Amino acid sequence: MTKKTIRLLMPQWQGGNNPHYSFGAELLAWLAPKNNQPLIEVPVQAFDGDSLEKEDGMNGRTQLFEQLTAAHHLLEAHKPDRVVMLGGDCLVEQAPFAYLNERYGGNLGVIWIDAHSDLVRFVGYDNGHTLPLGNLLGEGDKQFSSLVKTPLKPANVFIAGLATPSQEEEKRIVEEIEKAGVYPEEPEDELINRLGIRTANADELAKSTDSIKNWIKENDIKHLAIHLDLDVLDPSSFRSLLFANPDEDYNFSAAGSLQRTQLIRIMKELSEATEVVGLGITEHMPWDAINLKKMLEEFPILND
Amino acid sequence: MTKKTIRLLMPQWQGGNNPHYSFGAELLAWLAPKNNQPLIEVPVQAFDGDSLEKEDGMNGRTQLFEQLTAAHHLLEAHKPDRVVMLGGDCLVEQAPFAYLNERYGGNLGVIWIDAHSDLVRFVGYDNGHTLPLGNLLGEGDKQFSSLVKTPLKPANVFIAGLATPSQEEEKRIVEEIEKAGVYPEEPEDELINRLGIRTANADELAKSTDSIKNWIKENDIKHLAIHLDLDVLDPSSFRSLLFANPDEDYNFSAAGSLQRTQLIRIMKELSEATEVVGLGITEHMPWDAINLKKMLEEFPILND
Repeated sequence: MTKKTIRLLMPQWQGGNNPHYSFGAELLAWLAPKNNQPLIEVPVQAFDGDSLEKEDGMNGRTQLFEQLTAAHHLLEAHKPDRVVMLGGDCLVEQAPFAYLNERYGGNLGVIWIDAHSDLVRFVGYDNGHTLPLGNLLGEGDKQFSSLVKTPLKPANVFIAGLATPSQEEEKRIVEEIEKAGVYPEEPEDELINRLGIRTANADELAKSTDSIKNWIKENDIKHLAIHLDLDVLDPSSFRSLLFANPDEDYNFSAAGSLQRTQLIRIMKELSEATEVVGLGITEHMPWDAINLKKMLEEFPILND
Repeated sequence: MTKKTIRLLMPQWQGGNNPHYSFGAELLAWLAPKNNQPLIEVPVQAFDGDSLEKEDGMNGRTQLFEQLTAAHHLLEAHKPDRVVMLGGDCLVEQAPFAYLNERYGGNLGVIWIDAHSDLVRFVGYDNGHTLPLGNLLGEGDKQFSSLVKTPLKPANVFIAGLATPSQEEEKRIVEEIEKAGVYPEEPEDELINRLGIRTANADELAKSTDSIKNWIKENDIKHLAIHLDLDVLDPSSFRSLLFANPDEDYNFSAAGSLQRTQLIRIMKELSEATEVVGLGITEHMPWDAINLKKMLEEFPILND
């Protein structure tokens, strides 16, 4: 029987507290190859000019929770076999991945292709997009993880492409984070070790993807969901990322280093190794398009 | 009476011999503010995988001339008072600017905001986008300028934002161009002097736009068309330009240095100083969107 695949467009920005994520989602949907997969938009409250309120340690908690609930309702309405999620900040992944894990009997495999683990809350940063994977594992935020009926099995999770800053870079980032009063509730590497989650950084993946293929075999993963945070890519070859804003220097986070050709190869190999039932693409921050759009909005003849 | 304004979308790529210009045009049209200006597409032969033929010193001459003729027919069909042209390579400007100069009795003012003068043929490079302004002045290419019924008055032309490479950079570019066997039919600065065209580079414009305002007053310019080649912008703050390809080093051309805020200010000041009846935006080369689209086309789940 043909599998039913839907695309969800979820222009959520509150999880990163940056309205540009909405535009990034729209452009991503425009760029996606056209086929017969229906595109269903998840209602998201647009930025209205007001700052988000920090509610119980999360900026925009109420809006985010409402949007998460809406995504679940749409998934239940359509009951797809496969889901493509076009985000938006990383927190958009929670609903489709939780849905798919239930749909596939709690045995879903998840590969989290991301420069960051998205496992823990960073106190003082307080943005929900730091913890979708935590929520999906039954860790993370209590309210949000309560919507995950069947948490992922840690053995079924693989984090690929984690940023590996140089010692010097690492030192600078730690200093910046401390200066800003930001700290993780539990250090990410400790949490990864405690749960026993497999990882490979970009350098390892550039050499070989055997670690991923072995993980799929050893855990008998028959259905796989792929999370792709575009920030896993080397920002010198793909600049539509938060940390590659041409007008600002960000210092809080290490950059990804995966090359586009490597990413394409990984995506193809995953589809050969098992059945891919989910793909989420997140954190698209197309600075040039944002800036060009803003310029065009200022040119009088285009706005008469 | 309300002025009739139309938008032309002309995804022409043959003038720069680079199919990506077509996609740049489509994305530009998608980014432009929505209003009631109709968007009319000029038929352009899509890239079919074959290299363009060099015909009488111009790559793709036949296709380019057909497309130019089509643009003229559409302008004559709609007879607008004002035209917005969304390109495509720079040669898209010829039809609307020639049309507007006739429409306004041969007295159209043209400000050419561009890192390059677009006045002469570069032998050995042979791409039509190096000479739209030449054609409009009755110089340039004989066949193409023959379609300009009323050439622009040189006194009514101002070139703004010309690239001013450092001596070292200039030397490197000259060497690269000579190595490639490329040379201008007439040196650009000589042609500018011979015709008596006013210019200001980005540094001068950053200090003051008085030279432009004085030019408008002295020549009593009542109707102005603005050409904007996005390559006038500093590629470190706007990277969707031919010369900012993240995967290649181009060496044949000096980069622009105008800042986005300066460009917006110039556009507003021009609209205050006189009536703007034309705007063309060209040479949009959105590398990240091109590369992301290519990646998405390779992800199996998006292409079932």
